[in-house]
Amino acid sequence: MQTRYDIAIVGSGPAGLSAALNAKIRNKSFIIFGSKNLSSKLQKAPKVNNYLGFYGVSGEELKDKFLSHIEGMQIKIQEERINNIYAMGEYFALMVNEKIYEAKTVILSTGVEYTKALEGEEEFLGKGVGYCATCDAPLYKDKVVSIIAYNKEGEKDASYVSELAKSVYYIPMYRGEYNINDRVTIIEDKPIKILGNEKVEKLVLKGKELETEGIFLLKDSISPKQLVPGLKITDGHVDVDRSMKTNIKGCFAAGDCTGKPYQYIKAAGEGNIASLSAVEYLDSLK
Amino acid sequence: MQTRYDIAIVGSGPAGLSAALNAKIRNKSFIIFGSKNLSSKLQKAPKVNNYLGFYGVSGEELKDKFLSHIEGMQIKIQEERINNIYAMGEYFALMVNEKIYEAKTVILSTGVEYTKALEGEEEFLGKGVGYCATCDAPLYKDKVVSIIAYNKEGEKDASYVSELAKSVYYIPMYRGEYNINDRVTIIEDKPIKILGNEKVEKLVLKGKELETEGIFLLKDSISPKQLVPGLKITDGHVDVDRSMKTNIKGCFAAGDCTGKPYQYIKAAGEGNIASLSAVEYLDSLK
Ligand SMILES: Cc1cc2nc3c(=O)[nH]c(=O)nc-3n(C[C@H](O)[C@H](O)[C@H](O)COP(=O)(O)OP(=O)(O)OC[C@H]3O[C@@H](n4cnc5c(N)ncnc54)[C@H](O)[C@@H]3O)c2cc1C
Ligand SMILES: Cc1cc2nc3c(=O)[nH]c(=O)nc-3n(C[C@H](O)[C@H](O)[C@H](O)COP(=O)(O)OP(=O)(O)OC[C@H]3O[C@@H](n4cnc5c(N)ncnc54)[C@H](O)[C@@H]3O)c2cc1C
Repeated sequence: MQTRYDIAIVGSGPAGLSAALNAKIRNKSFIIFGSKNLSSKLQKAPKVNNYLGFYGVSGEELKDKFLSHIEGMQIKIQEERINNIYAMGEYFALMVNEKIYEAKTVILSTGVEYTKALEGEEEFLGKGVGYCATCDAPLYKDKVVSIIAYNKEGEKDASYVSELAKSVYYIPMYRGEYNINDRVTIIEDKPIKILGNEKVEKLVLKGKELETEGIFLLKDSISPKQLVPGLKITDGHVDVDRSMKTNIKGCFAAGDCTGKPYQYIKAAGEGNIASLSAVEYLDSLK
Repeated sequence: MQTRYDIAIVGSGPAGLSAALNAKIRNKSFIIFGSKNLSSKLQKAPKVNNYLGFYGVSGEELKDKFLSHIEGMQIKIQEERINNIYAMGEYFALMVNEKIYEAKTVILSTGVEYTKALEGEEEFLGKGVGYCATCDAPLYKDKVVSIIAYNKEGEKDASYVSELAKSVYYIPMYRGEYNINDRVTIIEDKPIKILGNEKVEKLVLKGKELETEGIFLLKDSISPKQLVPGLKITDGHVDVDRSMKTNIKGCFAAGDCTGKPYQYIKAAGEGNIASLSAVEYLDSLK
């Protein structure tokens, strides 16, 4: 039988980690989805002075402190990206491509996407533009697909899509080594806009243009609106009350995804509250 | 001329300290009131596992981390206890006995009082029972006063009151050496209830009864309602929105005083938000 967790935490930045600590202390069964680096935003910060207790640390050092804290408490991060979350009444179904996880409550701690939308991105959304390459890959059988990836995890997706598509262009928006299937063409260039009529036809880069039928933008965070159908959003942020409840029963949110200010300790504080609210909700079900 | 600070922070627990860090980073003039120990609640915690970044620390160790952070940023705590805060329109007046501080905005981070009220305490409030010995001392000229003190700072107050009162009983609710005027009688016993008719007549302790006309309870925190006339309170907590605004313009609150859960990182996260909200408010005045 499928495991049904008490709490599923989606995102491994300070908000998600803080939620996990409290779920562990309160003895709930839980799973936390994210990445081993925790959060690219943690890694990028050059100098952090406003996380009380750590003076003048780099984001990288803070990341190491967080890692050793969760390791000390035997918390493991499930390295998977949730594509969709459905409220099923008694529980939530969390989808990772064809795999399904189940949990009684969900804490959204997915951060926010800082990158601005490309010209044409919103216009062609659903008309050739998508955010989950592996979900939509079957639609692009024998077609030309372009993948703009904001992090290394895009490499796995590109390799997967290349098995179905006619050809795949991979435009990495990060630096480093690429570990990718050689059926994929890597293009190091800056995306400018998306062109087409009814549907996507071209991706215009700074240095060249690509004829393409599908464009995937693999960003650090999927917007919560796309992630959880029915979730109430205001000005791009998840609507929460002071106990971090969303409009969906059993679904809580914390961190940048709930609104400004975008700050580590605000995120961690909200993760703590969301977790204790989820615990209270679980206890009320008994 | 009197200095008028941009921000006055009342309380030096995690909420107040986190607010101070951000006021400093944002280059505002500010003052933070509290004590060198930061917070008695920090010192009391035996083992803290849910402040992200520190695993298995004692409250004392966490206190030292916080102290070295603020010292690194040259933040000094003003060791004074605010008795009253009045909204004057353009600014706030913060009273320390006969002294007045001025600030354009206030952040309340006073924590909450965990100790239960004594039997009779609420009934006789204002009828012989008070929370600020130095404020009300003149009312007790040549009378018998009892002071129940929850922290060492009460010793100074008792010495001060002893210069006016006929006699002073001092009932310390903490352990340690007492550094106190010898006109004050120290009584180590447990207060049980307050008795009287119209006014206070007796303080009943476990081991004896004291005839007394005034009783002061010097707790760690004064209730925010008493501290700031006109402040909106719900169920004993300061009413705030998600940006930590209270009902009084320019007055913000953070930490335990805004409600449960009572947790370090929740307090620190709210201090961060309150500070940035105060900065935004100050900038809007220009
Ligand atoms: C360069 C830079 C410097 C900064 N400096 C500071 C600073 O000095 N002080 C400060 O307080 N703040 C700073 N910040 C802001 C801070 O990084 C954020 O406020 C904080 O990281 C927010 O935490 P979070 O947990 O809400 O989200 P994030 O840290 O963004 O973490 C979200 C995590 O969830 C993962 N995720 C998202 N969607 C899914 C999904 N569907 N499935 C699985 N995982 C998912 C993401 O990959 C990510 O790992 C800085 C940010 C940047 C970019
Ligand atoms: C024994 C114990 C164990 C705990 N363990 C944990 C734990 O493991 N994890 C966790 O997350 N939380 C724990 N807590 C809760 C935690 O201590 C509080 O949530 C936290 O300290 C709240 O921070 P704060 O800044 O809001 O207030 P406080 O820490 O209470 O600080 C308020 C400060 O303001 C000062 N002050 C108040 N009024 C005035 C005034 N008028 N003028 C000047 N100064 C004033 C007070 O003296 C105090 O120093 C524990 C608490 C206790 C008592």
